[in-house]
Amino acid sequence: MSKALPTRSENYSEWYNELVKRADLAENSPVRGCMVIKPYGFSIWEKMQRALDDMFKETGHSNAYFPLFIPKSFLSKEADHVEGFAKECAVVTHYRLMNDPVTGGVVVDPAAKLEEELIVRPTSETVIWSTYKNWIQSYRDLPLLINQWANVVRWEMRTRIFLRTTEFLWQEGHTAHATSAEAVAETEQMLGVYATFVEEWMALPVLRGIKTPNERFAGAVETYCIEALMQDNRALQAGTSHFLGQNFAKAFEVKFQDKDGKLEYVWGTSWGSSTRLMGALIMAHSDDSGLVLPPKLAPIQVVIVPIYRDENQLARISEKVALLVKDLKKRGISVKYDDSDAYKPGYKFAEYELRGVPIRLALGMRDLENGTVEVARRDTKTKETRTYEDIVDHVETLLETIQQAIYDKALAYREANSHKADTYDEFKEILDSRGGFIYAHWDGTSETEEKIKEETKATIRCIPLDAVEEQGTCIYSGKPSSRRVVFARAY
Amino acid sequence: MSKALPTRSENYSEWYNELVKRADLAENSPVRGCMVIKPYGFSIWEKMQRALDDMFKETGHSNAYFPLFIPKSFLSKEADHVEGFAKECAVVTHYRLMNDPVTGGVVVDPAAKLEEELIVRPTSETVIWSTYKNWIQSYRDLPLLINQWANVVRWEMRTRIFLRTTEFLWQEGHTAHATSAEAVAETEQMLGVYATFVEEWMALPVLRGIKTPNERFAGAVETYCIEALMQDNRALQAGTSHFLGQNFAKAFEVKFQDKDGKLEYVWGTSWGSSTRLMGALIMAHSDDSGLVLPPKLAPIQVVIVPIYRDENQLARISEKVALLVKDLKKRGISVKYDDSDAYKPGYKFAEYELRGVPIRLALGMRDLENGTVEVARRDTKTKETRTYEDIVDHVETLLETIQQAIYDKALAYREANSHKADTYDEFKEILDSRGGFIYAHWDGTSETEEKIKEETKATIRCIPLDAVEEQGTCIYSGKPSSRRVVFARAY
Repeated sequence: MSKALPTRSENYSEWYNELVKRADLAENSPVRGCMVIKPYGFSIWEKMQRALDDMFKETGHSNAYFPLFIPKSFLSKEADHVEGFAKECAVVTHYRLMNDPVTGGVVVDPAAKLEEELIVRPTSETVIWSTYKNWIQSYRDLPLLINQWANVVRWEMRTRIFLRTTEFLWQEGHTAHATSAEAVAETEQMLGVYATFVEEWMALPVLRGIKTPNERFAGAVETYCIEALMQDNRALQAGTSHFLGQNFAKAFEVKFQDKDGKLEYVWGTSWGSSTRLMGALIMAHSDDSGLVLPPKLAPIQVVIVPIYRDENQLARISEKVALLVKDLKKRGISVKYDDSDAYKPGYKFAEYELRGVPIRLALGMRDLENGTVEVARRDTKTKETRTYEDIVDHVETLLETIQQAIYDKALAYREANSHKADTYDEFKEILDSRGGFIYAHWDGTSETEEKIKEETKATIRCIPLDAVEEQGTCIYSGKPSSRRVVFARAY
Repeated sequence: MSKALPTRSENYSEWYNELVKRADLAENSPVRGCMVIKPYGFSIWEKMQRALDDMFKETGHSNAYFPLFIPKSFLSKEADHVEGFAKECAVVTHYRLMNDPVTGGVVVDPAAKLEEELIVRPTSETVIWSTYKNWIQSYRDLPLLINQWANVVRWEMRTRIFLRTTEFLWQEGHTAHATSAEAVAETEQMLGVYATFVEEWMALPVLRGIKTPNERFAGAVETYCIEALMQDNRALQAGTSHFLGQNFAKAFEVKFQDKDGKLEYVWGTSWGSSTRLMGALIMAHSDDSGLVLPPKLAPIQVVIVPIYRDENQLARISEKVALLVKDLKKRGISVKYDDSDAYKPGYKFAEYELRGVPIRLALGMRDLENGTVEVARRDTKTKETRTYEDIVDHVETLLETIQQAIYDKALAYREANSHKADTYDEFKEILDSRGGFIYAHWDGTSETEEKIKEETKATIRCIPLDAVEEQGTCIYSGKPSSRRVVFARAY
């Protein structure tokens, strides 16, 4: 609280790091690459979890829980999968410590070596499909629609709180179906759930699209994704939904008897979203004064600060506020009355601004006399004076207005930062001067994609689902292309 | 479903294992000692989580998240703690796999050895107190009231689903206070929360007590516990709350400046409950026909089964049931209408009995004519016919009646199986013929406690908080004792 945040224009990366720390969202832990999610940050994550979980259940999914550990041999059963994950996984090799007979210190007991090493799950397809083998015999057992909330570990060399950490929290859906069409429909449905959640709850517009083979999930036939644009004009993948074909069914021999009695391999999907979304939420909306939270995800939606000179004044204000708090809570609005005597109003204002509380109400003696309340919006930093009678209705409407305004602002930002490039020079010029989403023609080859990535650090974020047919030539190879894909530098 | 469960009297242990499997609660996973919690079992656990989480929040606690991994050296900082956990922890030694250059198989990459091994958390005191060091400077930072929902790993040699598994799910509260008295009050408050939850939600009466030094948590000054009695007359510890004194504050140098500016070590508590509670829930109430679930934790509280001969009859019944379902849902009752054509009513009855659905309603053509509904209670296996108009009110009341009846039955069972023993012979006779809780005098020494355990496998479950002063002599040593403690063989 003592000094200002770095500004976004000065140093976006430092601004993000400091904001995460000062708004009490999370911090680096003493364990390399792992984070501690602090209570305020976790309460936002809990709101995200609850909203997503409700949506999963409304679409017929149930939660379950599968083991943290995966036998090394399981990982190898799907060839692409092991290729994708073996290089970054934490390996458990022993199950006991002992006192070193020489030094007396605590060391790994060499006698307690595991016969087969265990991997800490980087994702759970393998252990789940090995289980589904026993759960699925007939078409009557399908579809199987399961989700799991869990921690996963991927040994990342460069980590960044929420965006890329060795351990992170996520949910992973794993479904099994009788037909390819049904599995594809599920994959698309869950992409839709993610898009709806990110747009309606996080107030963040997303592009829906398909990944190129290069960027596909290890073991998937098709990876669908949603992509959002951050304020530094980098893209952030906010959720993925994979059509697995019969890849894992074949790797784990999961077959079912169809209505005609024929044995067939099962069709699968998996889909995930993680604490990365916290990073997206922070980076998309916040400003140089701190967090800006969409009301639907704000742990505190309204804070009330009394302006007083003495105990007597405070008592009179508090009496009035008590009724207000009660009325707001009746409408399901989460409200905090900060009557602590330890800090001055100005300090409190800055504190709640930093923490992104959407609406701040202030009441002083003059307000009591005039029957008014001062209303400050976090997102626009505007203030107005309203009558006390009207305030509960006004706050309720204003929360909706703010939710929409944050979304609209992010959408306008994305639109202002989406460009078409028709030549490679133009492409590089946009990338270096402005960044953002660049719509360009691509010849469809991995070679071209990799060359562009090597030379510019831009990747194909997705082939948009709503892309229109448009004849053109690849910005890199000059070969023909029939629609534009979206490039960006990304988190 | 095809054959009957083993009965409790035949083989209690097999009855439990089969019940867990057939009621679709959980199963052993391909990973040694780890379980898969299946959707039906997990939905019960979710209800338990929600209820406990609400109670934690009502008592001022916030959730947060700390790393899965603990550096080996952290574990050693508290002498008793490492002693208690080092012998059973999973150790991560490497962070990458590679293809074996000779065989081509996937092996641990020897070049990716960690400088310091990481332990998969068996409990999080060490990593949390190492974090609290930075969060606590002044008395104004206290109390710090935090809870975490997480998975933990303890390498158990003999495992049993829900009761003792290598990985399990739990919550662990970790709080920090300015005074010893406040920390003790917190420890006792959280024991009270557990007791209330287990009694009011799980319908299971518990003894509240203190553990002997032998049974104390590794690193605690005092361990409080709640103990429940299962139907095979073994005890099950259903939750523990630890007063940590300044042990972890000293191990991790966590000091605060008090109001007078003096630096003091912080006082701590920790408290936990786990998926073990699922085991207690199953073992305490269920019968030879399957699960018996207290209505407050039943994922489906009411199932409605139509009795019909043809499509036309089904349509008429379904029309009537639709209104009933709507009215029940309006009261917040979770109801399922099973109109599937794949199974006969008798099969469905057995299925829902096995799954412990508290109330089953059946409607046939005669019921339509007479304006009646058949109501069957799972707990008592009794049936009655009620009028259709009255049924929603009746179901609502009956759910409460059943919740209470299950509790009363468990309490009566415990009372019938609690005995006093005044001599060691009497003690052993009760233990071998009946088991249950045995109230006996004990001389207060670890030696006596260990001898009794060695000779009888009975342990001191607790020194009850409500024990009355009573002069007597230790059943083993004959030395004087001023109150009885509770012995039992335990899970």
